[in-house]
Amino acid sequence: MATSKFVYFFGGGKAEGKTEMKDLLGGKGANLAEMTNLGIPVPPGFTITTEVCAAFYENERNYPAELEAELDATLAKLEKLMGKKLGDADDPLLVSVRSGAAVSMPGMMDTILNLGLNDTAVQGLIANTGNDRFAWDAYRRFIMMFGNVAMGLDINIFEDILHDMKKKKKVEDDTDLTSDDLKTLVDLFKAAYKKALKKPFPQDPKTQLWAAIDAVFGSWNNPKADKYRALNGITGLLGTAVNVQSMVFGNFGDTSGTGVCFSRDPSTGKNVFYGEYLMNAQGEDVVAGIRTPLKISVLAKKDKDMYNQIIAFKDQLEKHYKDMQDMEFTIQEGNLFILQTRNGKRTGQAAVKIAVDMVEEKMITKEEALFRVSPDQLDQLFHPMIEPKSRKNMVLLAKGLNASPGAASGKIVFSAEDAEHAALAGEKCLLVRKETSPDDIGGMDAAQGILTSTGGMTSHAAVVARGMGTPCVAGCKDVVISGKTMKVDGKTFKEFDWITIDGSTGEVFEGEALTIAPKMSKELVTVLEWADKVRLGAKREGIKGKGFLIRTNADLPQDAKIARNFGAEGIGLCRTEHMFFEEGKLQHFQQMIVAEDQEARKTALKKILPLQKKDFKGIFKAMDGLPVTVRLLDPPLHEFVPQTKADIKALAEQIGIKPKALQDKIDSLHEYNPMLGHRGCRLGITYPEMYDMQVEAIISAACEVAKSGTKVFPEIMIPLVGTAKELEILKANAEAVIAGVFKAKKMKVKYMIGTMIEIPRAAITADKVAEHAEFFSFGTNDLTQMTFGYSRDDSGAFLGQYIADGILPTDPTASIDVDGVGRLVQYATQLGRGVKPELKLGICGEHGGDPASIDFCYKTGLNYVSCSPFRVPIARLAAAQAVINNR
Amino acid sequence: MATSKFVYFFGGGKAEGKTEMKDLLGGKGANLAEMTNLGIPVPPGFTITTEVCAAFYENERNYPAELEAELDATLAKLEKLMGKKLGDADDPLLVSVRSGAAVSMPGMMDTILNLGLNDTAVQGLIANTGNDRFAWDAYRRFIMMFGNVAMGLDINIFEDILHDMKKKKKVEDDTDLTSDDLKTLVDLFKAAYKKALKKPFPQDPKTQLWAAIDAVFGSWNNPKADKYRALNGITGLLGTAVNVQSMVFGNFGDTSGTGVCFSRDPSTGKNVFYGEYLMNAQGEDVVAGIRTPLKISVLAKKDKDMYNQIIAFKDQLEKHYKDMQDMEFTIQEGNLFILQTRNGKRTGQAAVKIAVDMVEEKMITKEEALFRVSPDQLDQLFHPMIEPKSRKNMVLLAKGLNASPGAASGKIVFSAEDAEHAALAGEKCLLVRKETSPDDIGGMDAAQGILTSTGGMTSHAAVVARGMGTPCVAGCKDVVISGKTMKVDGKTFKEFDWITIDGSTGEVFEGEALTIAPKMSKELVTVLEWADKVRLGAKREGIKGKGFLIRTNADLPQDAKIARNFGAEGIGLCRTEHMFFEEGKLQHFQQMIVAEDQEARKTALKKILPLQKKDFKGIFKAMDGLPVTVRLLDPPLHEFVPQTKADIKALAEQIGIKPKALQDKIDSLHEYNPMLGHRGCRLGITYPEMYDMQVEAIISAACEVAKSGTKVFPEIMIPLVGTAKELEILKANAEAVIAGVFKAKKMKVKYMIGTMIEIPRAAITADKVAEHAEFFSFGTNDLTQMTFGYSRDDSGAFLGQYIADGILPTDPTASIDVDGVGRLVQYATQLGRGVKPELKLGICGEHGGDPASIDFCYKTGLNYVSCSPFRVPIARLAAAQAVINNR
Repeated sequence: MATSKFVYFFGGGKAEGKTEMKDLLGGKGANLAEMTNLGIPVPPGFTITTEVCAAFYENERNYPAELEAELDATLAKLEKLMGKKLGDADDPLLVSVRSGAAVSMPGMMDTILNLGLNDTAVQGLIANTGNDRFAWDAYRRFIMMFGNVAMGLDINIFEDILHDMKKKKKVEDDTDLTSDDLKTLVDLFKAAYKKALKKPFPQDPKTQLWAAIDAVFGSWNNPKADKYRALNGITGLLGTAVNVQSMVFGNFGDTSGTGVCFSRDPSTGKNVFYGEYLMNAQGEDVVAGIRTPLKISVLAKKDKDMYNQIIAFKDQLEKHYKDMQDMEFTIQEGNLFILQTRNGKRTGQAAVKIAVDMVEEKMITKEEALFRVSPDQLDQLFHPMIEPKSRKNMVLLAKGLNASPGAASGKIVFSAEDAEHAALAGEKCLLVRKETSPDDIGGMDAAQGILTSTGGMTSHAAVVARGMGTPCVAGCKDVVISGKTMKVDGKTFKEFDWITIDGSTGEVFEGEALTIAPKMSKELVTVLEWADKVRLGAKREGIKGKGFLIRTNADLPQDAKIARNFGAEGIGLCRTEHMFFEEGKLQHFQQMIVAEDQEARKTALKKILPLQKKDFKGIFKAMDGLPVTVRLLDPPLHEFVPQTKADIKALAEQIGIKPKALQDKIDSLHEYNPMLGHRGCRLGITYPEMYDMQVEAIISAACEVAKSGTKVFPEIMIPLVGTAKELEILKANAEAVIAGVFKAKKMKVKYMIGTMIEIPRAAITADKVAEHAEFFSFGTNDLTQMTFGYSRDDSGAFLGQYIADGILPTDPTASIDVDGVGRLVQYATQLGRGVKPELKLGICGEHGGDPASIDFCYKTGLNYVSCSPFRVPIARLAAAQAVINNR
Repeated sequence: MATSKFVYFFGGGKAEGKTEMKDLLGGKGANLAEMTNLGIPVPPGFTITTEVCAAFYENERNYPAELEAELDATLAKLEKLMGKKLGDADDPLLVSVRSGAAVSMPGMMDTILNLGLNDTAVQGLIANTGNDRFAWDAYRRFIMMFGNVAMGLDINIFEDILHDMKKKKKVEDDTDLTSDDLKTLVDLFKAAYKKALKKPFPQDPKTQLWAAIDAVFGSWNNPKADKYRALNGITGLLGTAVNVQSMVFGNFGDTSGTGVCFSRDPSTGKNVFYGEYLMNAQGEDVVAGIRTPLKISVLAKKDKDMYNQIIAFKDQLEKHYKDMQDMEFTIQEGNLFILQTRNGKRTGQAAVKIAVDMVEEKMITKEEALFRVSPDQLDQLFHPMIEPKSRKNMVLLAKGLNASPGAASGKIVFSAEDAEHAALAGEKCLLVRKETSPDDIGGMDAAQGILTSTGGMTSHAAVVARGMGTPCVAGCKDVVISGKTMKVDGKTFKEFDWITIDGSTGEVFEGEALTIAPKMSKELVTVLEWADKVRLGAKREGIKGKGFLIRTNADLPQDAKIARNFGAEGIGLCRTEHMFFEEGKLQHFQQMIVAEDQEARKTALKKILPLQKKDFKGIFKAMDGLPVTVRLLDPPLHEFVPQTKADIKALAEQIGIKPKALQDKIDSLHEYNPMLGHRGCRLGITYPEMYDMQVEAIISAACEVAKSGTKVFPEIMIPLVGTAKELEILKANAEAVIAGVFKAKKMKVKYMIGTMIEIPRAAITADKVAEHAEFFSFGTNDLTQMTFGYSRDDSGAFLGQYIADGILPTDPTASIDVDGVGRLVQYATQLGRGVKPELKLGICGEHGGDPASIDFCYKTGLNYVSCSPFRVPIARLAAAQAVINNR
């Protein structure tokens, strides 16, 4: 490491780093360097690289030997440029110490401000600023932050002293305390520090600095940071960088202030300057949501010149980075400093709008625009909204900030932990908090929505919720939380009472809402058209035909219609079992299940046939001309029979057999491992009449719909095939039935017969299976369960820990496990196409709507992915990104 | 097919076929040809090839066009040689028509005798033989057999008429009926035939012949034959041949007779001539067990010359075929004919004895001898015997023939169907029948043992039972069966009463017996030594080290000792969960399971530690110096907790918590698919203290045993690994514990840490897993379940049909599925050895004791197989066969 450079200076219009050095300097450090080089007024400082962080963890928390000398030299350079010295009695240099990794992790890493203050320097600060109140306040803040963040003390040790002081002085706000009060606080804080740590507060600024650097690097691996990375799938980073930057003060008085702003509206994407600021405040006051800030437009009226300066830098930065910027600024006694800029987080709606606008503004290309919207962001646009008519009848309780769009109903919970528990128990919940903190990440992810009583649009809750795409109403002051009750509008709500929030409007309602899906915006339609052009024009070597298609998983005509409107190019999975649960069919089906012999089963099935045919006709009509893959019955029969004594008695009476006999039959259907039991095509083999009925219903429906002038293209899919022979037999059975239908109807329709590849053995023997299949659809839900040996119903007991411990990078039921399950999919693809080059391949597991999995499917050579209707647009975008990424 | 030859003649000392043409002529036809060429007196005839059978099924039961002309020509040749003509009024030729496939399937295919008789020919037979009683008897037998076998009539149509006739004539035996009675029977039979079939009995012998040929070919695919082939894993045959052979008659009078004999004793293997005969009888009378035959030694006294002739042919045939022969002969008026010879079926004991003797007689080589014993036959030698002391206290009911060795206890069932039902319900049953028939194959296989009241050592029951290795007492005349009761020794037994048979002695006992395993015979030791020489000397390209080892699956010291005595070279699987179920440990373990936190779990585990250590010390001592693979805890925790209310209450009191709290905890452990749940190494990850305790117990035990002078070599096996990371973490945990033990004990022992490959994903990612493993043990039980998606507990609902329908060639849990599961094993082997060439590989699933699977494991490059103690000798032989077969 002797030749390495560990510390990068920025200041005086020149910097050693640049944006491209993000991996080494972190996003913040790289941008501070870039801005310095651009001539933006950035307080000078230096960045300690992420390589130091990596070395720190590799060497049992020791630093490279060369670091200290390099840091001393760079610090000297900074002191020279600033004309101030750390700890100086006349004009001390104060610095901030902040973390900054290559990927932004808001609130995850700890920050220390005002470093360099001690009993001597505070006098220098007073002397130099002539503001002793400010100096003592800075000192007491520093002791508090240093004690808490660098030394791990409980913040309440200091908060309690502050509280007592305010009580004693009978004041409400910190700002009402006098200079003397603050000086007394400094003494009290130092005493409390010494009592808790058995050593005095360090007066040596270098000691302070190293302790702060330790704290930043140490926080890289704290549980909050680990959890954030796990939740966001962030891996492969070296570590965090440390940014040491000379302090500027927004709390220097009424000509000072601080703010956070976005170059465009991060919520709507509109090209309007957007932000908040507070005069006489430090940055933390805005972000933490303790005081409610003013809109940036207010500044335009109050200080037009300052506002114009900010606007100019905003324009410069947006043009430079060719993306919407999220900036922090501080005004110190009328002088503007830009503390930070980064590509701003935004809602899905904003991402789409900004991407389209920037293409129109010729800032970026259409293909670049496709990467300005993440598929997950699009998901937000398909969050349910409150159904307009029913909205009129809902009881409005309060209105807060529309912090993250979408409507959500849930049972109230008051802690992140309770939210996680509720989610595990399958409950929909709404997390209601005064404000959220990084500790709450898990619960925020588990909740349907978030409601906070304090904090602004850039508060923790708002920022994180937008990132997650979770609806959020923030800063709803009318909501008063105490313990496990919430009071609002004169009413008291307890834990588990239902409420609804609308994150797009900021409204809070009583009870549960009826919700509907929003329509697609003009800009979204544009982005998806660009995506489709890329996607449909894709050509892969060795794969017949062009394009990469998106189908949908839909069981009902109404779902099929929604998906079609969203751009689905066919149905990849129409499950027939849901049809059996409908009133009017279930009883006949139960009769079939408990029948003594094949004749009795056939009699019962005959009653279901016309009803199933009707279902299929509806779907075929909805999909007019597009292919529809119908999966024959899959679940084990015991899922269809009653389990309680009363229900069994009722069914027994209905079908006219003795309850005891029915009970015996139901008992005989019990399975120890239903996942691995008598289901799928195994039912087709043992009860061929059942599949025969389904095939007859599909093909009869297809003929009748075709006759009425609608194009149909049914694809019959045999589930759970594990051996080629199963498919061979069931295909022959189906073809016999189809021939019969064609003969009876005196007409034919085009159709295909294929199979799901969802049993590991089917993938392994796909060459043999392919001989009898016209298509494969990878059922990666079951394939994942069997390849891992995880039951989705049971793996909750360990899966959370597996992801937290890094045993699994992500939940393999949500995003395809490329190394294991993916290898089987690739293997089956090679084997299948090896014997049948024209074999049509698709995926119909949940993974079909997951962007990373879509990329994998494209690379692997699948012809289409199939996903739930609301994910079709997401898949269209993700597929286009996959095409570009794999060129 | 124009150039094919379909009909092969034999007779007059010359034949067109030979032994090597078995596939084409069937075993029987090939041997008849071979014997004819050897100068053995075989009645002349011809064989229609198995290719005709294949063509028959391929062409919708039509024969090749050329067949008829070829058959006519060959028949003319036969008539010329015999000087008789089919259907001739003066001296008619009579023929038998029999099936004969390449593999012997006793009783499976149908036979027709005396073909050629009609109203004219019967007069010719009378004229030519001067024996009208014989002629009419032959005619009535032919009508009966033809009606039943060729035309599918119920045999009782004829049996009832015969029964009425005997009743009317007041006689007991068929032989007491007069010539006139038999003539009347012929008329009655013809009338019954016409009534049942709406057409007269065919008088044209050619019509008869073609109908008989149809029947033989038709029987190839009947359910009995299908079931026999399925049960015996017989696949890949073209079909059956048809043997048409001139009749000789053992029922021609007192100088005629028929018999079945073996060149050596098929039960013990002793080199003594062994057989049975009946004078004035046809072959069917002996085989069907209707009359009880005489021992062949009686013939030596009654007709020394005839006996010597048979002995001479026996010697000639055994020398020629170099194997023990099973022959059928007929004496017609003092002239000897050999009707059939084949390699005789034999017991395992006999197979071993004959193999060793034939090596000593220099008839075969040692390696040939290894193939004269099938591994499955060896299994018979390890069937339990009645424990000698307890035998004294057993109530002997009767004694029959010792038809198939081994002792068996079971609940009485009276039909094959009931036996199959009982076996499915997990009941041990004994099939008690007057006699068995091919219809009973399924039930015979399902039963623990078979008891018949009639029939000899060559009866259907005896032959089939020996082949299956199922204990059988045959011809036990004191047993009287009526409906579902059995009377014997003055006592009445009902269905499901317990009895015991000893097939080695022929004894039948009341009640259930205590059984023990037999010791190994001198000859068996010899055969296994020959096998070991081959096995241990094996060298495979690319695989380090020599040999192919046999380990055992044993959890207890006593099992380990038995396996060692049987030749086990280590323990391949020592399951630790069984140890937890023992008194004294279960309670502590339950306490651990329901504990609230890790501390409480550790406290409970501390109590188990010394007990587990003791278990391991016992096993290490028993295996002195041989490696012992210990698998850490595998089953889900809910298997260890009580399920009934009363048991839960008792446990709650024991451990001092409220029953409700315990119930809640137990409920929380419930899993929907326990196979795919929280078990194996997933427990090790979530409860590391549990595996830590086990590792400490293993290594402490190893140190203490090593200190006492016994060599130990523990191999710690982590079960259910699905990701490399699991193994990495658990290996590190184990190594930390081991280092602690070594430090505390101030000593070290050699050990290994490895994993089971039983999750498909582990096989697919075996290269990554191998980085952390010193060995792989393929857990093919779970690997099969997950690769197929079959739960062993639930697949019974369809697996039987799957095997019957040929979807699966055999039960994949019994014999490894080479195409699917096997491919994963091969893949994992390549990946694992790719990164670690010295990786030790073994198998510890049930497949480790299955000969076909052992062959697969050898080919794949595994270092060892591990099986249950009693299968170790079987595995030793199968392994040697694998080595030779794969040279």
